[in-house]
Amino acid sequence: MKAYLDCFPCFMRQALHAARIATPDERIQREVLDRIATLLPGLPLDATPVDMGRQIYKAVGEITGSSDPYIEIKREYNDRALAIYPRLQGHIQASPDHLLTAVKLAALGNIIDFGANPEFDLDKSIEDGLAREFTASDYPLLTERLAEVEGVLYIGDNAGEIVFDRILAEQLNRLGKKVVFVVRGAPIINDATMDDASYVGMDQVAEVITSGVDGPGTTLRFCRPEFIEIFRKAGLILAKGQGNFEGLSDEHAPLFFLLTAKCPVIAQELGVEVGALVLHAQAGLKRRQDDQG
Amino acid sequence: MKAYLDCFPCFMRQALHAARIATPDERIQREVLDRIATLLPGLPLDATPVDMGRQIYKAVGEITGSSDPYIEIKREYNDRALAIYPRLQGHIQASPDHLLTAVKLAALGNIIDFGANPEFDLDKSIEDGLAREFTASDYPLLTERLAEVEGVLYIGDNAGEIVFDRILAEQLNRLGKKVVFVVRGAPIINDATMDDASYVGMDQVAEVITSGVDGPGTTLRFCRPEFIEIFRKAGLILAKGQGNFEGLSDEHAPLFFLLTAKCPVIAQELGVEVGALVLHAQAGLKRRQDDQG
Repeated sequence: MKAYLDCFPCFMRQALHAARIATPDERIQREVLDRIATLLPGLPLDATPVDMGRQIYKAVGEITGSSDPYIEIKREYNDRALAIYPRLQGHIQASPDHLLTAVKLAALGNIIDFGANPEFDLDKSIEDGLAREFTASDYPLLTERLAEVEGVLYIGDNAGEIVFDRILAEQLNRLGKKVVFVVRGAPIINDATMDDASYVGMDQVAEVITSGVDGPGTTLRFCRPEFIEIFRKAGLILAKGQGNFEGLSDEHAPLFFLLTAKCPVIAQELGVEVGALVLHAQAGLKRRQDDQG
Repeated sequence: MKAYLDCFPCFMRQALHAARIATPDERIQREVLDRIATLLPGLPLDATPVDMGRQIYKAVGEITGSSDPYIEIKREYNDRALAIYPRLQGHIQASPDHLLTAVKLAALGNIIDFGANPEFDLDKSIEDGLAREFTASDYPLLTERLAEVEGVLYIGDNAGEIVFDRILAEQLNRLGKKVVFVVRGAPIINDATMDDASYVGMDQVAEVITSGVDGPGTTLRFCRPEFIEIFRKAGLILAKGQGNFEGLSDEHAPLFFLLTAKCPVIAQELGVEVGALVLHAQAGLKRRQDDQG
């Protein structure tokens, strides 16, 4: 999807947030904002928000000298999510449709921001989340497609959330599906990398590869050629989070987007309210179903 | 007060909002954002948010060719506030302390944004607002100071809100105080100008003058010399809204700020929660009271 004008203020906000995590020095934070302001007029009209995000976090790294400012936050996210892993499994086992519950938990994992509030009650948040409506009218299409394929290309999003992804990967394994789990090619914000995948044991339930992308979402032109080939051949792609939706929503591919709509622009694109848990099949997949139906 | 780094994303947001009101053309809206982005790195570290606001709305006017895009919105704000004027008077008459209720209504008038929601229930909002706590520990200081002066210099803020200001001006008149009501020198966002003052009959209860300022708040260096002289001689100045607080909070003057704290930065400066109704005496006034007490 193309960046909306509403994304421009948000780019500044994201840059400030990242700069503050990277350094307490206000002069350097101001320098980061000035650099982003200088970049904005050059943003092409057809650029996606992830393209700009990539430039923002590169600038933060260059100016603050911190290449992975979120490393400790990511570790904490992973630890807190791992601590409730047994209870997440319990929710799955107690539910009538294990796969649906795992899909919903994976969408829910996308919203949990441990960093925002140290008193954050993760258990309560999951109870509340499981009770919420799940905009998953495309779930029948997912199960139908799943029956036709041998494996799933699963493009991950954030650290912490990756534990929820592991739960879904396990359910896919139980259905006899091989999972190839994709992480970013370099540290970017709190996005999951190869280190996070190993840390939470994703490599025990999936083959873990990197897309090679160094932005906060998957845009094919920034991916390594080997990944693009895997992407093009995949029979079913599950893409987590806003960044992957932003970068891939215009691709013709068997994509299912699984995310929490956190910003008004993405909620509008998806036709849902802000905060909605969403499973959204790429338009081409829906048309195919309509043709057959 | 100086602009915080948090104001930078907000400058972009304000510019986009104003550009959208001035024109439906997205290319022109983008041009406005690009111009603001170009201006940001040049913003001096000691600039107030109003200084930047002034540049933002100048740029919007220049680029969109619309010098007063809010003129219809302002008229609607005034009409809707005038429609409930009798009920506002009723609230005053029904209250034990007429002046305090008028002060609270004037602060409440600062939050009402008719534009945000066409279904906005003004009556209900006022009922709710009057029931809310009023951060007015400086009210005794205001009444004390009021007893010592012949008149009040009352620096207004927005259209619509100016009807609430008229209610307070009437109460000040009843206490035998002359009111000089100050409007901006040129149209800027939805800020009240001489036209709005005439439209709502402010000229019947106060002498209406302009500060000469062409920004969305009062910064003395942009005011006309005659106003600065009046400001310097005033025994009691009531300044409405965030823009006047931003521009005047560092002035040594007998200032009382009356506003709703709408943004986190201003709430932090004032030590209150976002959304709080505030009457805040300038520090010098408080010290004087402490010395005497």
